[in-house]
Amino acid sequence: MLKTLEYTDGIVRMIDQTKLPVETVYVDCKTSGEVADAIKTMVVRGAPAIGVAAAMGVSLGAQSINTDDPKQFAEELEQHCSVLAASRPTAVNLFWAIERMKKVAESCMNGSIEKAKETLKEESIRIWKEDIEINKAMGKHGQELVPDNSTILTHCNAGALATAGYGTALGVIRAAVEAGKKVRVFADETRPFLQGARLTAWELKEDDIPVRLITDNMAGYFMRTGEVDLIVVGADRIAGNGDVANKIGTYSVAVLAKEHGIPFYVAAPTSTLDLSLDNGDQIPIEERSAEEVTHIGGKRFAPEGIEVAHPAFDITPNALVHAIITEKGVVRPPFKENLRKAKAQ
Amino acid sequence: MLKTLEYTDGIVRMIDQTKLPVETVYVDCKTSGEVADAIKTMVVRGAPAIGVAAAMGVSLGAQSINTDDPKQFAEELEQHCSVLAASRPTAVNLFWAIERMKKVAESCMNGSIEKAKETLKEESIRIWKEDIEINKAMGKHGQELVPDNSTILTHCNAGALATAGYGTALGVIRAAVEAGKKVRVFADETRPFLQGARLTAWELKEDDIPVRLITDNMAGYFMRTGEVDLIVVGADRIAGNGDVANKIGTYSVAVLAKEHGIPFYVAAPTSTLDLSLDNGDQIPIEERSAEEVTHIGGKRFAPEGIEVAHPAFDITPNALVHAIITEKGVVRPPFKENLRKAKAQ
Repeated sequence: MLKTLEYTDGIVRMIDQTKLPVETVYVDCKTSGEVADAIKTMVVRGAPAIGVAAAMGVSLGAQSINTDDPKQFAEELEQHCSVLAASRPTAVNLFWAIERMKKVAESCMNGSIEKAKETLKEESIRIWKEDIEINKAMGKHGQELVPDNSTILTHCNAGALATAGYGTALGVIRAAVEAGKKVRVFADETRPFLQGARLTAWELKEDDIPVRLITDNMAGYFMRTGEVDLIVVGADRIAGNGDVANKIGTYSVAVLAKEHGIPFYVAAPTSTLDLSLDNGDQIPIEERSAEEVTHIGGKRFAPEGIEVAHPAFDITPNALVHAIITEKGVVRPPFKENLRKAKAQ
Repeated sequence: MLKTLEYTDGIVRMIDQTKLPVETVYVDCKTSGEVADAIKTMVVRGAPAIGVAAAMGVSLGAQSINTDDPKQFAEELEQHCSVLAASRPTAVNLFWAIERMKKVAESCMNGSIEKAKETLKEESIRIWKEDIEINKAMGKHGQELVPDNSTILTHCNAGALATAGYGTALGVIRAAVEAGKKVRVFADETRPFLQGARLTAWELKEDDIPVRLITDNMAGYFMRTGEVDLIVVGADRIAGNGDVANKIGTYSVAVLAKEHGIPFYVAAPTSTLDLSLDNGDQIPIEERSAEEVTHIGGKRFAPEGIEVAHPAFDITPNALVHAIITEKGVVRPPFKENLRKAKAQ
């Protein structure tokens, strides 16, 4: 498996997820601004991967600060953090990672600036490493929900490419396979960015996990024919009551799952929990460009000048969620109480 | 408005719906086989338009038969009909139109072959003309279901391009506008063939009817935000109990409509009714090529060799359908009884 992102020698190297799987191209970021751009343009995407990238971006920013004055350092670091925080609004892991980096910076302010820079770099690499461990723990808990000989439908890409490695929803599927279970996957192509067709289908094929690619609007068809046993998706932000923000189309999948009595699971690390929000309607939903809808692969197919809506995420109300799989264990309703317990563990 | 298809001087000319709206190209069919190919490759699509094209294809076939022997003529005509009938399996209008042409041919078998050829040509043009009249009648009945100042969501293209002109679902919308109502439309892009993005968005824009293009997986989002007042779609075949076969994704829209208490209407001529079938599960669902899913505009974006499912239609059970708008009037449940009455009128 290719590395989603890597931090060495002052460079954060990312596999360009806008070009996979047809082209395997890497993007090298040398500044916090370049990392912010990579997040904005979705060279790197997926809530946990965005978090890791942002942490590495904060470190790149820190390394570039040329001062011996701790106050000046803190001020400039804050600017780098602001640039990164403005890249995308919905995935809370972005803000979580920046906050964690800021706290580490604060705790270093009694020592030398050089030491602080080193500590920040180490912390960003620690976040990267932890993310892989967290995904494996999530997989271990989550795979218990996957029956042998079952067919799982997933939306978007919550795989190795959405994280430092292994994946959240696809981590659960990988763990089920590692536990000796036979599973098949339906991958929603996930318009407009086609993360399912380009990334999920590719990841699973590379791992020899049987996968069938479908357009988003076929999910209901296969639920009605009885071919889907369970659904596992990732999340970009989970409110305190268990409402889930995830890639646009997730809500429709959840409603269809309810109609057919199919369990709907969300796999996400506790860093995706935003307990400061009472419910999902408080989660900011990013509106992305019309061109991502009207053009595919640089080619326009819709009429010129057509009005387009492009909410990049939607909210799945907690009532449609059977369980949230975290690295601390499987959290079931009542979510308000149980998510707090999981986060505090 | 451009003509979907036209029959003059031994040529059936069709606007190439695989290329709209970026290119306006016409395809000239001179034989029944060329018409069958145009139907197969979706140069012409939409159940009523397929019916008209097939009728014209039967006429082209008839003109090409070189015999004075009525038996020989009937046999060769049957071959032309078979080629056309094999083009696509789901839209019943195809078979309805071929049957109607065959009956006309039979009724001519006492006269001259030349006269029969002329009569068949006239009949195919009559089917074309009738289709426009039928759509206008459907619009007149259907627009009564559209409140002033409302937002209508539609899936695929059930417009002028899916018919001889005016449209079924879009005919209802056009009639509402002509009745002085203010309406706005959400057009599902309708993967994989993008009839919504390419054809519906284009038709409505040409007519200055406000339209917003969305990906299929955004429909649930806008229903949840309360921005959709009603849904109108077309149909490819309606079983005796009111189960509706229509473009893949229609079923998901209907389930979402139920979840949000939004009325779901189907607009289709009585030629789309197949009262020989008890229910929708008896309707054959066409499986189309993987390439239509993995490639857009000739460009591949999914991994090579990936397994793909591509049912081109789905079945919406009658329980999710509030009413079926026909040229005879608005048919409400119980459909089994009321569809029979409408067809017999």
